[in-house]
Amino acid sequence: MSTTEAAPTTAPLTPSTPPPGPTGTRPKLTNRGRSSGPVASSNSDATEIPEFEPFVAPGPRGFPPLTEFLDIMDVDMMRKKEEVNKQQHRSSYYNSEHLIVRRGQEFQVEILFNRPYKPSKDQFAVEFVIGPSPEYNKGTYIPVFPTGNRQSSWLGRITNTSGNTVTVGITPNADCIVGKYLLYVAVMTPFGIRRTRKDDNRSLYILFNPWAAADAVFLDDETERQECVMNEIGIIYHGAFDDIAERDWNYGQFNYGILDACLYIMDKSGMLITNRGDPVKVARQASAMLNSRDDEGVLVGNWSGDYTYGVAPTSWTGSTDILLTYASSKMPVCYAQCWVYAAVFNTFLRCLGIPSRVVTNYYSAHDNDGNLKTDIILFDNGRIDRDRTKDSIWNYHCWNECFMTRPDLPAGFGGWQAVDATPQETSDGMYRCGPASVQAIKHGQTCFPFDAAFVFAEVNSDVVFYTRNKDGTLQTVKVNPNHVGRMILTKAPGSMERRDITEQYKFPEGSVEERTVLEKAEQYGCQRETSDLPPADVDLVLPTMEVQVGDDFELTLELINHSDQRRVVDAYVSGTVVYYTGVTSSEFLFRDPTLTIGPNKSVQEVIVVESRNYMRKLVEQANLHFMVTGKVKETGQIVSAMKVVTLHNPQLTTTVSGGGRVNEEMMASVEFTNPFTFSLEEVYIRMEGPGVMPPKFKYYSLIPGGSSLVWSEFFIPQRAGVTRLISTLDCRALRQVHGQATFTIKP
Amino acid sequence: MSTTEAAPTTAPLTPSTPPPGPTGTRPKLTNRGRSSGPVASSNSDATEIPEFEPFVAPGPRGFPPLTEFLDIMDVDMMRKKEEVNKQQHRSSYYNSEHLIVRRGQEFQVEILFNRPYKPSKDQFAVEFVIGPSPEYNKGTYIPVFPTGNRQSSWLGRITNTSGNTVTVGITPNADCIVGKYLLYVAVMTPFGIRRTRKDDNRSLYILFNPWAAADAVFLDDETERQECVMNEIGIIYHGAFDDIAERDWNYGQFNYGILDACLYIMDKSGMLITNRGDPVKVARQASAMLNSRDDEGVLVGNWSGDYTYGVAPTSWTGSTDILLTYASSKMPVCYAQCWVYAAVFNTFLRCLGIPSRVVTNYYSAHDNDGNLKTDIILFDNGRIDRDRTKDSIWNYHCWNECFMTRPDLPAGFGGWQAVDATPQETSDGMYRCGPASVQAIKHGQTCFPFDAAFVFAEVNSDVVFYTRNKDGTLQTVKVNPNHVGRMILTKAPGSMERRDITEQYKFPEGSVEERTVLEKAEQYGCQRETSDLPPADVDLVLPTMEVQVGDDFELTLELINHSDQRRVVDAYVSGTVVYYTGVTSSEFLFRDPTLTIGPNKSVQEVIVVESRNYMRKLVEQANLHFMVTGKVKETGQIVSAMKVVTLHNPQLTTTVSGGGRVNEEMMASVEFTNPFTFSLEEVYIRMEGPGVMPPKFKYYSLIPGGSSLVWSEFFIPQRAGVTRLISTLDCRALRQVHGQATFTIKP
Repeated sequence: MSTTEAAPTTAPLTPSTPPPGPTGTRPKLTNRGRSSGPVASSNSDATEIPEFEPFVAPGPRGFPPLTEFLDIMDVDMMRKKEEVNKQQHRSSYYNSEHLIVRRGQEFQVEILFNRPYKPSKDQFAVEFVIGPSPEYNKGTYIPVFPTGNRQSSWLGRITNTSGNTVTVGITPNADCIVGKYLLYVAVMTPFGIRRTRKDDNRSLYILFNPWAAADAVFLDDETERQECVMNEIGIIYHGAFDDIAERDWNYGQFNYGILDACLYIMDKSGMLITNRGDPVKVARQASAMLNSRDDEGVLVGNWSGDYTYGVAPTSWTGSTDILLTYASSKMPVCYAQCWVYAAVFNTFLRCLGIPSRVVTNYYSAHDNDGNLKTDIILFDNGRIDRDRTKDSIWNYHCWNECFMTRPDLPAGFGGWQAVDATPQETSDGMYRCGPASVQAIKHGQTCFPFDAAFVFAEVNSDVVFYTRNKDGTLQTVKVNPNHVGRMILTKAPGSMERRDITEQYKFPEGSVEERTVLEKAEQYGCQRETSDLPPADVDLVLPTMEVQVGDDFELTLELINHSDQRRVVDAYVSGTVVYYTGVTSSEFLFRDPTLTIGPNKSVQEVIVVESRNYMRKLVEQANLHFMVTGKVKETGQIVSAMKVVTLHNPQLTTTVSGGGRVNEEMMASVEFTNPFTFSLEEVYIRMEGPGVMPPKFKYYSLIPGGSSLVWSEFFIPQRAGVTRLISTLDCRALRQVHGQATFTIKP
Repeated sequence: MSTTEAAPTTAPLTPSTPPPGPTGTRPKLTNRGRSSGPVASSNSDATEIPEFEPFVAPGPRGFPPLTEFLDIMDVDMMRKKEEVNKQQHRSSYYNSEHLIVRRGQEFQVEILFNRPYKPSKDQFAVEFVIGPSPEYNKGTYIPVFPTGNRQSSWLGRITNTSGNTVTVGITPNADCIVGKYLLYVAVMTPFGIRRTRKDDNRSLYILFNPWAAADAVFLDDETERQECVMNEIGIIYHGAFDDIAERDWNYGQFNYGILDACLYIMDKSGMLITNRGDPVKVARQASAMLNSRDDEGVLVGNWSGDYTYGVAPTSWTGSTDILLTYASSKMPVCYAQCWVYAAVFNTFLRCLGIPSRVVTNYYSAHDNDGNLKTDIILFDNGRIDRDRTKDSIWNYHCWNECFMTRPDLPAGFGGWQAVDATPQETSDGMYRCGPASVQAIKHGQTCFPFDAAFVFAEVNSDVVFYTRNKDGTLQTVKVNPNHVGRMILTKAPGSMERRDITEQYKFPEGSVEERTVLEKAEQYGCQRETSDLPPADVDLVLPTMEVQVGDDFELTLELINHSDQRRVVDAYVSGTVVYYTGVTSSEFLFRDPTLTIGPNKSVQEVIVVESRNYMRKLVEQANLHFMVTGKVKETGQIVSAMKVVTLHNPQLTTTVSGGGRVNEEMMASVEFTNPFTFSLEEVYIRMEGPGVMPPKFKYYSLIPGGSSLVWSEFFIPQRAGVTRLISTLDCRALRQVHGQATFTIKP
């Protein structure tokens, strides 16, 4: 045994910095040693299944001719719109050549053999395969035996025989994987299995089924189902809770290529095929994938006002252009704000068969990560300290609700689930949100996944006013518990009206239940403000105002003295231009009146707001924010009121004429008059309509002040029914200009 | 009013693909319109606070000389190891010049003024600031007033006055942000605030405090605290549950630079400063950041056996080299497997003061995403079908437990929480895991965040055996509910023994509670196998074996017939080399004996395993996996048994000599003899010891078969106490060779 002293090299210890490889880059890591093979996470990949799978070794001359066994001549997927499958499965609207069915419900395929089927002798199976490396025990390879006593996980039965043709009825399990399957027909022989060749014409899509009681997305209300699954056109609410604005949106979930785009999104996310039957997992994964953060998802968020390198969020008219661009470019699409995320998410969910709707929460607390306080800091004279006030309350925020059971939670938390694809920039790592049970949010059960505490804060935060002392400390002077989550709206099913669903998220203001819920949420770690405040005897009220952009108007503030003494208030009135996120752009108005109010009296102060002061400063969606704060001299009480004024934009007059029947040419016209004295520059007008017109746009480099334009386009309706043309006009100086025309196409 | 037809440009609709910008790239997005300012997510950034902050405008000649007010001459942070702060706060081990204290517990600072402090007249504050844009209401700016009746959120009091010196005792709140703070002393004058200048010497670190009852990480057991917070050296268990191997690890949480590296990890992750007082959020964020997936985190996982471009996971001796390399290079470090992730995570948690330990789960189900089945597919003769068996069970898997309350969950789920930084490659998006309440896992309450269902499956999955029919369907033939999660170990506090904590995760096998828990987990969506199986009357047993690498040995299988009839079993014995992840590398042994067992008798079959058959095929950690399956001819019953044999490696003899006192030179020697007939190539030997030797390594290009080597290194112990030298030897043909020497350094 010899002692080796071979080439010892002591070196300073930095071996963990890898030396450059032959090409100077790190080697691609493999899954060797980590897993037995690649995992199935792509629906677009499919493994070929052999046409003949022998049971026994062939004899010296190969297998005998299998003439005595069934041979498969043809398989008819019965995939035409008019045929029973698409009618019964409510999939005839999908613009697709393929069969599209819903799980938990029978569909039919016709198999043409070379001779009549003999029940006593012939054995065949209909096989379904999804994704690469299909496996029976993973539910990615499903053989169905309609011929006899073999057990199969999906129900199969012969529903008709006629000559050489056998019609087979197949019922996919109500919890099966959702996506694109390949279908094979396989005949069993003693020598092996004889199969049809792989053929994309025999592919079919299996979707979620809100009509099947056994499906996790079952929704037992036909009006709701028609709205939340079948309706392609929606209304998204914005503006302010007391001056609601709406925009139309073409979800277009049945348009050509949209279903494939939705499956591509799941493929791109690397979502396991085996998880794609679970609507909770699908919704959660999609909430992450619809924004581009982390994962090169669908939409890039931009709130800056500079949309030079993409489409302004306010300019989109529907989801289809976004989804098709993403699926073809495989790159994130520019740009989105909350309603764009919510609208595209809605298309995704409805397309896959998950009932969903877009909701709007007025005064939405944001980015405060489960903290139930939005902090507003005042100077000690009562004026707002904008440098120190960092929290913002969004004028409104849109998210989605989707309907499903929650087997992962205790009973009682199924039903509507909040999901949100808007990236929460400042909440660590939260570039996905939900599904959070709306029931759990209402009852303060914020301990249940996913992200219920976050949504709870969006609708329940307190607005806390502080004054800042000289020594840097803050003192709570007022708490407004009712400002945030002021109203939550969604479109009413089966109508063009809106529906107030605030009570689904919150118990009534001031009720016993409300207090109980807030206490429970506090137990789960939500922070609330609990300071004792001096009694308040002066109220400050700002009225609701509806103002046309470019108008001068009056802001009236009213101070009411409930005490038996005179009160003098030093008030500070600040008018700012804000983004819809509540973030201040610039101040255009400031007044500091001192007002005296007699005992049990009220006074009004009228402030004239001139358009020339705000017009030059407008950003984005033309929101003016008035904040009035003040201090009562006698008591030190702080009074405050906030009001968002959403300036009303000019209309985009949208009309259609001619035809009115399928395949007859019609004309759409969009008219616009620039109501301002200045020119609008670099203007995009967009127009689209489900079933009648694909997205189109027109660019105007200049629209002089006061001038009008008309843009007309011919179109040919593709299908009958009530439909709508949706139009927008968008430029830097004027956003959120919409128009629409609703009309009926006869067959 | 004129009709404009200005430059209309109808174009094919692809505006969502942005035109290239001036530089051909997309503009960097800003937070304009989205939030009022950048969010504070970096502890290393700090905003300067002015030295003089005026309350009033200066007069025409500026401010009067403020001679009558206190002036601050010096601030003594009392940060020496011997001083009261580091002693009382148990931070003297940290190799740092700065003051390091724990929250919820008082510490002292001495302020030297220009004259004696006059309580009736002088007002001063001690201010703490963390991160950029500190704000009082966010807890990132904390003024403490020891002088009077001013309320402050942290307690401050004057503990001593002596001449011009005032000693102030400050108690950070028990829920305050953890990280590095700047300290200022501020004197209030009627004209403004006079402050100390920013000085890094007055920075201090505030950590979690398991000794403070009000802290969320309070752990009421001094032995546990000494182990799970203070102990720098640990033992990590591997091998097999019936042949446990252990390796020593230098966590090194007190080493120079480690605390800064841990704060850097949080900065790199963009974690909000305001969330850093919450141990639940800190642990979750770190579980994401310790792996390089998604976020350029600390460690790159590699299970392939090819570690050319980094350090083999088996070669590391401690965490410090990894953390320091990451903090300086700001790039992920290569390479890790589960115990490396767990060990570095442990360093992170202990360094910040969160009690934590590394646990090892033997037979850990993996990557099955809450599905409670691990599927093994057999041919219909009972032999394993390796092509179709995709699931693997890890021989062992390491994760961490950290101790904390769970205010976000209902009562009863505090205590130990499982967290796991090993990236779950195939679970969609799950590159973070936990904290999951161990109590919740034990009781099947998998509905609570975070990822309890995943950990539940790791310790509770059933092993399900199927035979595959000719038609592609599978039939359940055997279920083994007790294989997975066979034993869970951690190091016992205060000793070198191991502690079996299986009962903290699971009720006893076969107990009523166990069944109840599994049923509850099933309600929450875990899938279990529920097939009715034919009664089994033949048992198959494989004995425990301890085998030295390179030895021939005997494998004895025993078949026991419990019936009154003769039984004939066709058995298939397969010996494979496996990775520790259970993934098969290659088969080196196959036998198919037919065994006949008399009524109520048993037979043994001895199979000789020769080293020449397995040695050439060994991978990684030298694990042999024996699987015996078979079919009873008379009944069709499937018998099966699995056994992992971890081959024992040669020792690395590690000795120390000389000195034995602080600052006296000593010598460490590592001896190794190559026990094989072949040469070992490209061998790294590593050695390190907390407080005595930084990580060192030596490289040997060749160690001929049978030859020995000795590597000696001088070292100078830095501190007294019991310590250990930890050594490893690593090369492609031989991994997991460890050695250690425990010794005591006198003062």
